[in-house]
Parts: sequence; C-alpha cells; structure tokens
Amino acid sequence: MTQLTDRPAGTPGATRAEVGRALLAPRSVAIIGASDDARKTTARPLRFLREAGFTGGVYPINPRRETVLGERAWPDIASLPEVPDHVFVVTDTARVVDAVRECGEAGVPLVTILSGGFGEGGPQGRERLAELLEISHRYGVRVVGPNSIGVVNPRTGMLLTANAAFAETDLPVGPSFVASQSGSVIGALMTRAKARGLGFAGLVSTGSEVDLTLGEICEATLDDPEIGSYTLFVESMENAGPLARFAAAAAERGRPVTVYKLGRSDAAAALSVSHTGALAGEDDEADAFFRACGFARVDNFEALIEAEALQRRIGSPGATRADRIAVITSTGGGAAILVDQLETRGVTVARPSPAVFEGLGGLGLEVAENLIVDLTLAGTRHDLVLGALDVLRSSGEFDLVLFVIGSSARLNPELAVRAIAEAAGDGPVPIAAWALPDALESLRMLNDAGVPAFRTAEACAEAVAATLARRPVDPQVLGTRIAGAAVPAGHTLDEAGSARVLAELGVRFPAATTCDDTGAPAAEPTYPAVVKALSDRLPHKSDAGAVVLGVADAGGVADAVARITANVAAHDPTIRLEQFLVQEMVDDAVVEALVGYRVSPSVGPLVVLAAGGIHAELYDDSTLRLAPVTPEVAREMIDEVTAMRIARGFRGGPVGDLDALVDTVVAVSRLAVTRPDVVEAEINPVAVRPRGCGAVALDALVQQAHEA
Amino acid sequence: MTQLTDRPAGTPGATRAEVGRALLAPRSVAIIGASDDARKTTARPLRFLREAGFTGGVYPINPRRETVLGERAWPDIASLPEVPDHVFVVTDTARVVDAVRECGEAGVPLVTILSGGFGEGGPQGRERLAELLEISHRYGVRVVGPNSIGVVNPRTGMLLTANAAFAETDLPVGPSFVASQSGSVIGALMTRAKARGLGFAGLVSTGSEVDLTLGEICEATLDDPEIGSYTLFVESMENAGPLARFAAAAAERGRPVTVYKLGRSDAAAALSVSHTGALAGEDDEADAFFRACGFARVDNFEALIEAEALQRRIGSPGATRADRIAVITSTGGGAAILVDQLETRGVTVARPSPAVFEGLGGLGLEVAENLIVDLTLAGTRHDLVLGALDVLRSSGEFDLVLFVIGSSARLNPELAVRAIAEAAGDGPVPIAAWALPDALESLRMLNDAGVPAFRTAEACAEAVAATLARRPVDPQVLGTRIAGAAVPAGHTLDEAGSARVLAELGVRFPAATTCDDTGAPAAEPTYPAVVKALSDRLPHKSDAGAVVLGVADAGGVADAVARITANVAAHDPTIRLEQFLVQEMVDDAVVEALVGYRVSPSVGPLVVLAAGGIHAELYDDSTLRLAPVTPEVAREMIDEVTAMRIARGFRGGPVGDLDALVDTVVAVSRLAVTRPDVVEAEINPVAVRPRGCGAVALDALVQQAHEA
Repeated sequence: MTQLTDRPAGTPGATRAEVGRALLAPRSVAIIGASDDARKTTARPLRFLREAGFTGGVYPINPRRETVLGERAWPDIASLPEVPDHVFVVTDTARVVDAVRECGEAGVPLVTILSGGFGEGGPQGRERLAELLEISHRYGVRVVGPNSIGVVNPRTGMLLTANAAFAETDLPVGPSFVASQSGSVIGALMTRAKARGLGFAGLVSTGSEVDLTLGEICEATLDDPEIGSYTLFVESMENAGPLARFAAAAAERGRPVTVYKLGRSDAAAALSVSHTGALAGEDDEADAFFRACGFARVDNFEALIEAEALQRRIGSPGATRADRIAVITSTGGGAAILVDQLETRGVTVARPSPAVFEGLGGLGLEVAENLIVDLTLAGTRHDLVLGALDVLRSSGEFDLVLFVIGSSARLNPELAVRAIAEAAGDGPVPIAAWALPDALESLRMLNDAGVPAFRTAEACAEAVAATLARRPVDPQVLGTRIAGAAVPAGHTLDEAGSARVLAELGVRFPAATTCDDTGAPAAEPTYPAVVKALSDRLPHKSDAGAVVLGVADAGGVADAVARITANVAAHDPTIRLEQFLVQEMVDDAVVEALVGYRVSPSVGPLVVLAAGGIHAELYDDSTLRLAPVTPEVAREMIDEVTAMRIARGFRGGPVGDLDALVDTVVAVSRLAVTRPDVVEAEINPVAVRPRGCGAVALDALVQQAHEA
Repeated sequence: MTQLTDRPAGTPGATRAEVGRALLAPRSVAIIGASDDARKTTARPLRFLREAGFTGGVYPINPRRETVLGERAWPDIASLPEVPDHVFVVTDTARVVDAVRECGEAGVPLVTILSGGFGEGGPQGRERLAELLEISHRYGVRVVGPNSIGVVNPRTGMLLTANAAFAETDLPVGPSFVASQSGSVIGALMTRAKARGLGFAGLVSTGSEVDLTLGEICEATLDDPEIGSYTLFVESMENAGPLARFAAAAAERGRPVTVYKLGRSDAAAALSVSHTGALAGEDDEADAFFRACGFARVDNFEALIEAEALQRRIGSPGATRADRIAVITSTGGGAAILVDQLETRGVTVARPSPAVFEGLGGLGLEVAENLIVDLTLAGTRHDLVLGALDVLRSSGEFDLVLFVIGSSARLNPELAVRAIAEAAGDGPVPIAAWALPDALESLRMLNDAGVPAFRTAEACAEAVAATLARRPVDPQVLGTRIAGAAVPAGHTLDEAGSARVLAELGVRFPAATTCDDTGAPAAEPTYPAVVKALSDRLPHKSDAGAVVLGVADAGGVADAVARITANVAAHDPTIRLEQFLVQEMVDDAVVEALVGYRVSPSVGPLVVLAAGGIHAELYDDSTLRLAPVTPEVAREMIDEVTAMRIARGFRGGPVGDLDALVDTVVAVSRLAVTRPDVVEAEINPVAVRPRGCGAVALDALVQQAHEA
C-alpha cells in the first residue's frame, strides 16, 4: 500500500489510488450542511450536481429538514444506504469537527471542507485544527481543505463545489487537471478556458492543506489515464516535498505541468500568508524549485490556461531550442508585436535562410526576405498558407512555427485558420497561433485541431518562453533531500575548517600555510602573501583589521601578525588569536563572484551564484538552483549573472576562466549530496583568474549543524 | 490659415480644419478603383460604406464598368456631380499617380492611398514617390498613406477602408480616436474593443506617411468636439516633430493619449524598418519623448484599448499618486494576482489605516486588517459593496480604488458589479475594476457606467502604471527644438574649452589652473593635484598615459608634465603638447555618474544620466529625458539609475550630495536652450562627493557643430 503522505506509521488511510478515485470518480457523494435555500452558497453543490447530471449517488445531509431543494434530506452519514466515497462538509465552522468524525466513524475515505477557521484565527482555530487532525489520523479519513471551494470533475458532472462559477452549464472538458491554492481561481480558469473552447479534466481547490497538500492531490490523480497535463495555481511553498515527488512522477509519465505562483512582489507574497495561514516562500527559491521540477512557470494568468496545449504539443523539455522559432504572418504589425513580446522574454526569432525564401518563391509567393515570413502582399489564400507552412516546417531550420493571423481570423476562418488547422497534424514541427483581432471562434477551431492557440500576444510569448525554458528533470536533485524538512541550527567553522570542507569537494584555494602568534610559518609561504587571523569569532575579518595584504617576505609575516594582533585586541579584547593564515595573494582576478549554498526550509538545498562585491545586492545580480547541479546547469547560472559577462572579454578586457567557475559551483552544490551536516556555505569572493589559470576561493565560511 | 506641415512656403493646401473635416466628416467620398467583384479587397470600401449606411455622397470610380456592385460607376473624378471631400485610391500602384493628379485637378482636398510601392522597392518606387509629392504640392491635395488600409468614422458609417475587419456590423462608438502606423491593427483594436463594449470615434491607418504624418492626422482632429482621447500605435519615430506639436495641443485640451510602440526589442525595431521604409527609432529615445509628451505608453496590447477610459477618469497627470492605490476585492486570490502585477510595475498598493477598517466594521463588515480589503468572508452583497467603497473613497487615503471582482462578475452582476457601477458617479476618487472570471457582459456594464474595466490583470496593471507615470507636459521642452531636425556634424573641444561651455551653465569643476610644457603653473594649484595633457586630439587621455594622479607639489607638477610629454610622444608622435591642466584631486566621491547630452535626429535634445564606469553598459543602468529638465525631473532620473542608491547610505556607507547631482543634470540639460551650437556633451565621471560637498565634473567633452 502506497501511503500518500508521511503520516505517523500505522495510521490508517486510503491508498493513493483510493484517494484518487474518491476525489474525481466517487461512486457516491454526500453534502453535510446542504441548504434548502437555493440562494445560499451551501445550496450550490446539490444544485450544481443535479444540473450537471452527475449519475452517482448524491446524499444531501441536513438533520433539521425533511427535504432540501425538493430532495429527501438525510439526518446524518450513518443513516445513508451506502458509505459515500467523498463527502463535502459545508456546515458552519463549529460543526465541522463533528461532521468529519461522523465520516470517519462510517469509513468515508475522503472529506472536503468548505469552512475556514482551522489553524488561522487564534487559539480556538488551532484547537479545532488539532481535533480535526486527530480524527483524520484515527479513522484514516483524508481531508481536502479546510477553506476548499470544492472539487470538480466536468467529465462526469461531479460538481462538488460551492464556487458560483459552476452554475454554468456545458462545462468544457480538456486534458489538464487543475489544482489551485486559491478557490476562486478554479472558477476563473474554467470560465476563461471555456470562452476559447478549452476545458479541464478536473479542478480542485486545495484550501489550507492541513492534510492533503497540492502535491499529494496531484499524485492521487496520476493513475487517471485521461489526464494529460497539470495546471497549478500556487500561493505558498510550504508543502514543496510532495510536490517534488509528484513532479518526478509526472515527468516520468510525460505529463507537462504549468504553474502560476503568486508572490513575484513582496506585497503579494505577504498577502498569501494572511490568506492561507501558510508561510510565504521566497519567490526566487520557488523559481529554482519549479525549474528543478521541470515545470513551466508563467507570469501571465491566461498563459496558465493556454500553455498546457503548447507543452503537450512540444513534448519533453529540451527537444525545442529557444533560438529556432519561425514567425509567419498575414499581418506585419501583428507579427512585430509578437516578436517584441518573445524577444523581451529571451526567445529569439530565427531568420529563415535564403533557401526558405527561394522555396516560398517557388510557390509563387511574393515574400520579402526578412526576419519573419510576411504573407500580407501574397494574400491569405488557403493553399498558399498550407504551402508556406510546409516550406518552413520541412526546412530543418525550425523547432516551432508561430503563425500570427490577421483580420481573416475573425471573418474568414476558411482561409489561414483552416489551413493551419489542416497542417497541424502533419510533420514533427509544431505550429502555434495567435490572432491579432478578437477571434474566439477561430481559437476554438485551432484548439480542436490540436494547434495551441492564444488570445493575446503576451500570453503566447509567455507560454513559449516558459515552455522552452524547461529542463529535463534530474531525479537526483528532486530525490536528494526532502524539501520542507526542518533545517537544524548551525555553527560557523573558522576559515581553515571551512576551507577543508570545501577543498574536499574540489574547491580550489590559494597556496597557504599557517603560522602561530610568533609569525613563524608552518611551511614556506608563496609570496606576495596575505596574512589573516584564524578565528571562528571573526566572520568579518576586514572590519576588525585582521587582514594584511601584500606581504613580501618572512619579516613581513611577523609584522603582519603583530599588527593584526593589536587591531583585533582593540576591536574585541575577548578574542585571543593563536593561529594565522598565510595565503598566496591573488591579484589577477578578471571578475569576482560569490558562490553560496544553503538549505531552505521550504525547498531544500540550494546553490547560489552572484556578482562579487556590492553588485549582487545593488543590481539583484544573482541566481540559484536546487543542489546538486550538473556542469550544464552551472553554465546556465553563469549566463544568468550579468557581472560574469566581464569574464567574456567585456569591452576588450581579458577572458576569465569560467570553466573553473563551473567546477567551483558544481563542487559547492555537491554539499547537498555528501555533507548533510552542512547547512550553509559561502565563498566570497571566488576570484575568476585569466583563462587557464583557474578560479580560487579567497574567503570561505561553512556552517555545520550542531548535531553533526 | 494654419498650415499643417512645414511644406514649402506658398504651397496650396487645406487648413487643419478642412483636412479634419475631409478625414472624418466628408460630405461625399469617391473610391478610385472600386471593384465589381465583391470578394476582392478593392470592393470592400463600397460594400462597407453601404452596409454601414453612410449618408454622404458615395462615388465608385471605375472607367471599365457601367456599374459596380449594382451601383452606377463613374469614369473619373471630373465627371462627378460634385467634388468629393475625400477620395480613397485603391488602384494598382501603377495607376495611383494619375488618380491623385485627377483629384488634384478637381480640387479634392484629401486622398487616402491603399497601394504600396512609393519610396520602398528601389528606384522605381522612389520615382513614383517624387511624382506623387510633386502633384500633392502643386495642387494642395493632402495625402494619407500610401500603404494606408483606410479611414473609418463609425459615428457616421464612414467606412472608407479595405480592412476586412470592418465587414462587421454595429461598429461601437467611443470617445477615442485611433491613429496607427500598422493597418491591420485598426481592425484588431476595433474587434477587441467591441468584445467588451468599447468603441472609437475614428480610426486611421497612417501608412507610409509620405505627406500627412500620424501627428498631423491627430492634429487635424483637434477641433472635433466628440473626440475625448487618442489611441496611437507607433512603429517609427521618424516624424516626431508634428507629434510633439500635437501632444502640446492635446494636453492643452485635456485629451489624454495612450501609445503602444513597437521596438522594445531590437528585432522588432528592425522589422518596422522593413515594414514602412522608415528609420527605426531608438526605443529609449521614444520613451523619453512620449514621457515629455505626457503620453501613457503601454506594453500590453489590450491595455492600449482599455487605458484611455482610465486616463479620462483620472484626469490630468500628477493628480493621482502611484502610492495611494487601494485594492478591494471579493476574491483574495484574484486581488493577489493584481497586486503582483501592480507592484512589479512599480505601483504600490497602500494599506488602509485602522480607521478605514473601523469604518468597515461599523457597516457590520467582517474584514481582516490587511494590505487589501477582502470582502470574501463578508459576502458580496450589493449594499455592503456600496458601503465599503464609500468608506474607502471618503477616507482621504486613496487617489484610486481598484476593485477585483470574483465569480459574481459572471453570473450575478446585480451584486458587486451593479454596486460599483452605481458608485462610479459619486465622489472624486475614481474606481476601476478587473474581473477574475471571464465576464465580458459585466465589463460592458461597468464601461457604460464610466468605470474603467479591464479584461486581464496584466492590462489593468499596465494601464494603471502607465497612467500614473505620466507627468504634466512642459511646453518649454516640447517647444525648445523641433524634433526631427537635421543634426549637424560636430568637432570635439579640448578639456578646457569643454569645461568653459559647461561651467557657464553652472556645472562645477575641481579647482584648476594650467601650466605650459616647462611645468610652471599659471596660478597656485590646490594639492594634491591631477595633471593632464590638454589637447583636442586626446579624447581618451588615460589610455595615452596623459594623466598623472596624486601630484603633491610644484616639483611633482614638473615631473608629471615631463612624464606625460614622453608618454604621449610614444603614443602618437604627431601630437605636440603645449598646455597642461593642474586640477585639484577629488578622492572622496561616494559614487560616480555619467551625465550626457545629445541631439537625436528623431526626437531632439536629450539629457542622459548613467552609472559611472562599466556599469552603465553592463547593467544597462541609465536613463534619459528630453532636454531641458526641471530639478524635479532630474530627481526622478536619479531615482531610476540603480547605482545612485550607493549615494543614499547603501549598506551603511556615506550619503552623497545628490542635490548637487540634480543641479549638474539640470545645468547640462540647459544646453538645449542656450547652446544650439552644441550637438553632444559628456561629463564622465561626475564625482558625487559627500553630502554638502557638491558634485564635480572630473572630465568633460563637448562637441560643437562645425557651422557654429
């Protein structure tokens, strides 16, 4: 039996498959607290289930009435003729615990709770939560919510939700499963998708996630063969562990995941705290985490709806390059809008070769040689569009063809739109489309034909950029350490101790020896040298006058030791210096970098690369990844830190040894694998010397967990 | 008679008012080249005019047919019973010149040309263009196009266009006039606006602008009292002069302007070159220009439709602060999406005071104290929404209230949507709204009630940010120098000459004297000093070894002169040094900046502020404005250059004299007013010394026009 979560050993509870069936394919459902007043929120689930024609058993429970909305009302779960698979509790907060206990006693596997007031709102809320969890553990009844607006399977009319948006009839069905930490978002996604002929395979509002988390809910759906992709709306990174496990499983099944996460701004991040009672995750940590998960993260809300089709059409990460995109159009202005939106997101439109324009000319098409293939002058004829698409796709120059459709998309879909739809099935190079005018009918036609079609240029460009930025999932990274595990407190090792930990992993340091307070070195130093105090009580040595540069000989070492001793005594008389480091002085750095490592309580081990000096902070010039990283990922990180351009011969300057920096980043990231006792490390700076001369750590600090 | 353009003196031509009437309110129109084949593009104008019920005279001209589309066809303009006000030429390129000559001979004031092939496409195209302009000048017939898809006035059914999108019936009317350098964009704007109940007062595709430019076309509409705002789609900055003149006039009339410009990316900028034959303008120059014009520039295409209502509702620039925005919502998740989009665009959501929450509590509303006012728990009741809006708007804490509407926007507009619509008319604080679900009907209701309503959070945030970023138009800036004037070539003054030009304007330099090649100073230097060669042939003095730092006394000056003389002789034996600068050494700079000035051929004089050293280029850390600037604008520029944060006590460092940097930027920008002979200037670096100690120019170069 696969347990969904790390619940206490021996706890009863449904298997993943059982939860999955109860969630989306229950044989029968009950609604505890179903209202007879059709205008009330608590009347909605029963109304929606009936209007949508759900064919399973439906039991409204209301002990105070004989009937609700004209149906027989049941007094409690125990009196039902069968044990329902899924119970929606829509009572007042005060009656939720008793309702869940009823379910537990009857053997209900899954309960979804609408009300809030569990965990949030002071001691009473915390007490209610403790009771709720105790019942869940005792009886093995799994919980979606509280604060969940409900669960929807539009394939069967299973509308177990209080979200007003689902009063809608004709809910569209599609391949993607939606899990959202915001309730109203599921209704918004459904209505906005419907407007362009898209739908979903299921939608769940995960609420406060006191038991089943977003990742676990997605895991529970993995056996549903009709689900082709996942669409996630995330507010908090509190439960990243199960999400990582789900990500690995989804990648294995080739099911792409699109995610929109709140909290790009600190203000919105703080909002999500109040909203769900969860801790706000650092947004850049979330970014690193999603990247490791192979998710496409979009910052445009409608791209969250539209990107999944593009992801499914493109397939696995890495198959399509961000510099092999063709743009073809029947509107020059519209194509330029899309090119702008793509390029500002780092997607490069590729200029077709003269051979391509020759091929187009061979069809009788009058097309000027340019970055884009503009059919405006040639005219938007069905056969010409088909021919032009064939020339582009068979050229071998492109991994993706984007068609920007002009006015004909609205009033003459038999021209370009039909041609694109017909071409879609042929050949391995995917086509996607954006229509410049308002043209929802054409978007529906294209979507039905399997052409990812977009309502706005912004969503199109965002979806393309996010899809092409995906990288294959590295199971080692996701499996290395469970995200969300507690991070123990640590203590700082002194410089020599820190250097030993890092040197073992392959980080290079300047030639060095030590000396005692008489200034006598243990081995012959390499001059010119730097002399530094060795003490775990001096994390900021320069500020304490504990560093002397440019020491030329043995006499200089003795002088430096005396000066440092006096400076440190003046700085803090309680520090007693016994050991000093005599290090080769490195003064040929082309650029300096910071390489760091930390274990995030939400997403686990991370490796950081940043500009040296104040620029990391001033220009926010840093990047991070889940650790460990491969050399390829380390190279991507270097590409993302602007200051590293200095080492590429910036303005005619020297070229730095970035290969050696790659090795350093990889080495530091290996702490995640080899040193579970290390909770933090920072090399600041790493001197990137001229090409061929390596990269050396000039200063390093390591924090080790107390327990280690 | 007001001439629209700087046409040769004595050229005949319609006045602005006459062009305006012919453009949007012609008494009669003719179509030269009208086709009888209803499927052809050239049949569209007649079809559209008839279908839309245009009541003016309509004359199809086609010498080869008796009738077109069942109407009498006329052989030529001369045979018409009246002289049409506006003629649309839709013939083949080869016949355009003759058609326009016909119009000129008959005294037609305005011609719009559909065909291309004028200016672009080699010598034949250039010849055709010359002929066209000659006819236009000779007869005074003004031209829209070539390459214009046409002119539309939906108020009268005046659909003089070949854009397929206008086959549409029931064209919506609104207060904004659209001028677009892309033809298909006018159809796209109309259809997308229509979908949410918005419309326009007129739409013009400006085409290649060989005669009437976008700015002049907008000017021609200034007397139309029904036009309340302008919506511009711009590809090229080639004709910025008339646009500046229009901007000043529009600002005077209180008509806001929204602009979308292609070319954020270099790739799209290059596309617009090929598209219209115009030169691609530097996008950052365009930004500075639009800012000086008081335009709201949006980067989201649908915001181009939606921002005008917000601008009209908010009124003049400067009335609304970007940090006095309230967000109220019936969907916490939706509000967080909008907060993210606002904050990432620099708009700060203001937290209501406890008094506001007390006021809400007084209405019986259960609302948690937070950054946003979340009515989710209180419920979306009509009276509660009205009450809550009143509390927010009467608090005196907000200049704008943004309402994020949840599911009720789709199915229960009688709740929040009606309340917002009802409240809209009251009080001075504007309300704008975004609906999380798809809810076009509600957007229509809100728009009809005067509430700017948005379809996406991205467009809403973009419109808010662009509207609040507007600054009042400074007529001095727009009037200073005509943008688009030719910039004469210049020669570089030497350092002393450059310093004289800038010092006259108030730029401060270190204390300095000169000396000859014996090293004898003309006056007593301030030590420590820097000695530099003075030569207009040494723009990069450091590279030539022509600078010596840290000179302590008279002997040091003589030594420095000898060293520099030797270095420069080795660098370039043809340079003969006679004069040297002995300058006080400034070594207490908190931060270094670059202050520059240049005259752009497209937008006129510009002042630049950038980070010193390599960071301006590495991090693209610079900003620019049309010159001259006020101290207020200079302060904004300092806020926009990241490196200037160093002078605000960054990481506990010293505070720099940014007030003195403001003075320097203002002084350099005054070159635009006082020195028309100066074409370029650069102070690199300006040393920003500790607070109270000023900012001094350490090196400066000025380029003067040859003719001066």
